[in-house]
Amino acid sequence: MKPKNDMKNSYPGSEKIYVPGKLYNIQVGMRKVNLTDTVKIIDGKRITRHNDPVYIYDTSGAYTDPKIEIDLEKGLPRLRESWITGRNDVERLSEITSQYGRSRTADKSLDPIRFKNVQLPYRAKKGKEITQMYYAKKGIITPEMEYVAIRENLQNEMLGIKSHITPEFVRDEVAAGRAIIPANINHPEAEPMIIGRNFLVKLNTNIGNSALSSGIEEEVDKALWSCRWGGDTLMDLSTGDNIHETREWIIRNCPVPMGTVPIYQALEKVNGKAEGLTWEIYKDTLIEQCEQGVDYFTIHAGVLKAHAELVGERLTGIVSRGGSIMTKWCISHNQENFLYTHFDEICEIVKQYDVALSLGDGMRPGSIHDANDRSQFLELDVLGELTQKAWAHNVQVIIEGPGHVPMQKIRENMDKQLTSCHEAPFYTLGPLTTDIAPGYDHITSAIGAAMIAWYGTAMICYVTPKEHLGLPNREDVRNGVIAYKIAAHAADIAKGHPGAQVRDDALSKARFEFRWKDQFNLSLDPERALEYYKEGSKNDG
Amino acid sequence: MKPKNDMKNSYPGSEKIYVPGKLYNIQVGMRKVNLTDTVKIIDGKRITRHNDPVYIYDTSGAYTDPKIEIDLEKGLPRLRESWITGRNDVERLSEITSQYGRSRTADKSLDPIRFKNVQLPYRAKKGKEITQMYYAKKGIITPEMEYVAIRENLQNEMLGIKSHITPEFVRDEVAAGRAIIPANINHPEAEPMIIGRNFLVKLNTNIGNSALSSGIEEEVDKALWSCRWGGDTLMDLSTGDNIHETREWIIRNCPVPMGTVPIYQALEKVNGKAEGLTWEIYKDTLIEQCEQGVDYFTIHAGVLKAHAELVGERLTGIVSRGGSIMTKWCISHNQENFLYTHFDEICEIVKQYDVALSLGDGMRPGSIHDANDRSQFLELDVLGELTQKAWAHNVQVIIEGPGHVPMQKIRENMDKQLTSCHEAPFYTLGPLTTDIAPGYDHITSAIGAAMIAWYGTAMICYVTPKEHLGLPNREDVRNGVIAYKIAAHAADIAKGHPGAQVRDDALSKARFEFRWKDQFNLSLDPERALEYYKEGSKNDG
Repeated sequence: MKPKNDMKNSYPGSEKIYVPGKLYNIQVGMRKVNLTDTVKIIDGKRITRHNDPVYIYDTSGAYTDPKIEIDLEKGLPRLRESWITGRNDVERLSEITSQYGRSRTADKSLDPIRFKNVQLPYRAKKGKEITQMYYAKKGIITPEMEYVAIRENLQNEMLGIKSHITPEFVRDEVAAGRAIIPANINHPEAEPMIIGRNFLVKLNTNIGNSALSSGIEEEVDKALWSCRWGGDTLMDLSTGDNIHETREWIIRNCPVPMGTVPIYQALEKVNGKAEGLTWEIYKDTLIEQCEQGVDYFTIHAGVLKAHAELVGERLTGIVSRGGSIMTKWCISHNQENFLYTHFDEICEIVKQYDVALSLGDGMRPGSIHDANDRSQFLELDVLGELTQKAWAHNVQVIIEGPGHVPMQKIRENMDKQLTSCHEAPFYTLGPLTTDIAPGYDHITSAIGAAMIAWYGTAMICYVTPKEHLGLPNREDVRNGVIAYKIAAHAADIAKGHPGAQVRDDALSKARFEFRWKDQFNLSLDPERALEYYKEGSKNDG
Repeated sequence: MKPKNDMKNSYPGSEKIYVPGKLYNIQVGMRKVNLTDTVKIIDGKRITRHNDPVYIYDTSGAYTDPKIEIDLEKGLPRLRESWITGRNDVERLSEITSQYGRSRTADKSLDPIRFKNVQLPYRAKKGKEITQMYYAKKGIITPEMEYVAIRENLQNEMLGIKSHITPEFVRDEVAAGRAIIPANINHPEAEPMIIGRNFLVKLNTNIGNSALSSGIEEEVDKALWSCRWGGDTLMDLSTGDNIHETREWIIRNCPVPMGTVPIYQALEKVNGKAEGLTWEIYKDTLIEQCEQGVDYFTIHAGVLKAHAELVGERLTGIVSRGGSIMTKWCISHNQENFLYTHFDEICEIVKQYDVALSLGDGMRPGSIHDANDRSQFLELDVLGELTQKAWAHNVQVIIEGPGHVPMQKIRENMDKQLTSCHEAPFYTLGPLTTDIAPGYDHITSAIGAAMIAWYGTAMICYVTPKEHLGLPNREDVRNGVIAYKIAAHAADIAKGHPGAQVRDDALSKARFEFRWKDQFNLSLDPERALEYYKEGSKNDG
């Protein structure tokens, strides 16, 4: 295993800057795009005018900082470790506590693919509460909270742009459950970020190998490029071999929070047979992943046995993999979903590491025909009930959403989520606004994603052109991320996020003045813009 | 000049069918997608269930009819000619009447690139009115009106889907100016189609060579592929050499209505100097193009001298080429825009051929910063005034719109257009919902296009990935058309167009049942879906 190290390059025309905290000794990374002067000839004289640099929200972490050495075999600097240990409420374990994790560690045959520089995990001290939600409710502003407040504002203060986003506001939103800061104490490499509808819209990318496909290198490569193009979080949905080892590589090198769907790995442990799943195997998987540093878990706890009957009304049944697994389990055992019945225990586990819960939508519609139907909305009510349970444990929660929803039903879906789930952040896959464009579903869904994000969705999960057809390669990840950056940014502008339009205005001015390089450097994908420009010029020449 | 003839191929799994008229002896072409059976194993028995075929709106004309021979050097069958001559209100001219057209005909050096099979043009008999709007106001249902009524419904009646679209409804919408049927009597090859907000959303594609780029072959090729992928109309924006000859080739082989911006060609005739433009040169250009068969003209008659002053308020001034040309003319001559002052004469000319007017938005915003500003909305009021003038001549009218508009301002723009322009159909470029994604503006704008079409825009003008960067090649045309088919279809569903969801439901059912071929055949771009599937399977294998 030798991952490629070609991630180490800067954005063109840009430099990495750090904005210091006022409450804490923190340094918030941003990208500064330096612009050329405007040149005009007035009355035969050459007049130049300075153009202010533009500050851009940067998800690429250390990879674009020329001062930090990158070594994928060592992992990223552990940015948050001192903040975490400084609170005196966690302890370092003397060994990992999941059975599965131990058995993998003991297995010498895995040495060639293993990430070498593994650290022992942290966990809350007995009797201590350590989640960001707990601190927020206690009125405490953590370094993480100040970090995201600075990060969300870019340089608004310097530019004289008023902003509602202060460290106090961040704290209050997290306390109210309207926003989360996914920040497992065992993923101190990640830069803090916030997911909530009163903040910048975030986007998640999915990667992951399947039984027969790509290896660790390719997954790490896609993960890092996802961050470079602008992914705010990353879900590893691997179902193939060596999930545990792949995840370690990704987490140790990942500057953004990472999520998983633990039931996928649990299912691998019982050889793919849903009936074979047990609470014990699942619980061990949760602990295994908590101790590796997964920042949020998708938990399909809202798929109830009673819902299975409603599925007959649908055109496309259950398309959520997690939903389908749990329904199969409920039916074969004639028992209630064990994720639902053990939900309190799940909270008890994850709160010790500050892992957030992403309540999965097992009844997500797989076609516009099934959008906003009974199955979907009944599940949403259950997710609302679970949200309050999790909050009682001070566990941070987001709610997953569809899927396929035609435009005229998007607002209803958003409003229903806010009511049913007590304003917990919504995290939607798309939604796709039509079903007829396989090969282009990054576009069918970017339309829905932009709209639902404007209406209040906090994070949108990308869809690549390969959706429904196959697993994405690196270029598909790029196309998916950029489509979703567009959707998220269009929504930020529509919502009036402070300073969101600065970049648009600077780019448009550059375009109008034929400052091509500035136009490219300010764009979401400078390399692509330049490539098309050259191709177009060749056509023209 | 030998255009490629590779257009002659059918859509996979599909056949061309024709639905006969009830009022007239007409045959409306459609695409019928035949599906395989659903196969289920129930109690060990193999049960098959039939799946009904799906009918799809087809813009590819004769190119996908194996029974019709295609010869680009001869041009398409003249479908509408007998309908037109049967009305006894047009006459065939003994020669073309534009000076420019005559000089090109006389120029032997053009023989090698000339389309050979040119027919003499038709024109209204003296004192006769021949526009579809005129007929509609008189209470007449033309074959064109019955044709579009059948075409819009696909096979709704057979499927038991109720529809408001009858020939009478079409007539009433055209009479009210809420819809147009662009149908120059000199483009009888085109299949009638309707543009109006109570019908299917249409999409336009732009092609055209520039001074230094592609030749006739490439433009014809792009035009035909645009129709194959689903473009409803086509604008030829050529500015290079041999515009007249290129246009002839395209029109004679184009199964959809074609539009132009005559000022572009007029400008070529005065060597690119806006000051040199005169009404006489422009008028001759109009006649030249009317007699070739252009179905609608973009006319920037709403850019007034007084508006030029307001442009100082803008970030990106005037980005419409037509708007910029006419503003330059107004300023250099210190006179009112001659397209405005001669507007009645323009109507007098175009009504003799039933060419529709697309009132250009010379003040279209070139950045989201300038969206919905004074310049834009003042011009819209002028366009409303001109709409009523044109209607007094029974000239059909659509109104062009932006451009760049952030999501939260799209509804206001649509509402303002409906009020200011008396419900004349809106025809918008995008709009782009953010400025920061050069290289991906088919996506930034598909978001805006889907929304504005849902709110009431009748036709959306595509944007390709090369927007702002260079001229599109065939692959860019493909990506632009499909992105806009998605936007248009998402809007049709949101508006509840009768039967619009039939295709989505059939495709989703096929997907759910793993009938892969049916899924591909029902998709907007079957070749692309299949290609990605194979690529994905290879990754998986």
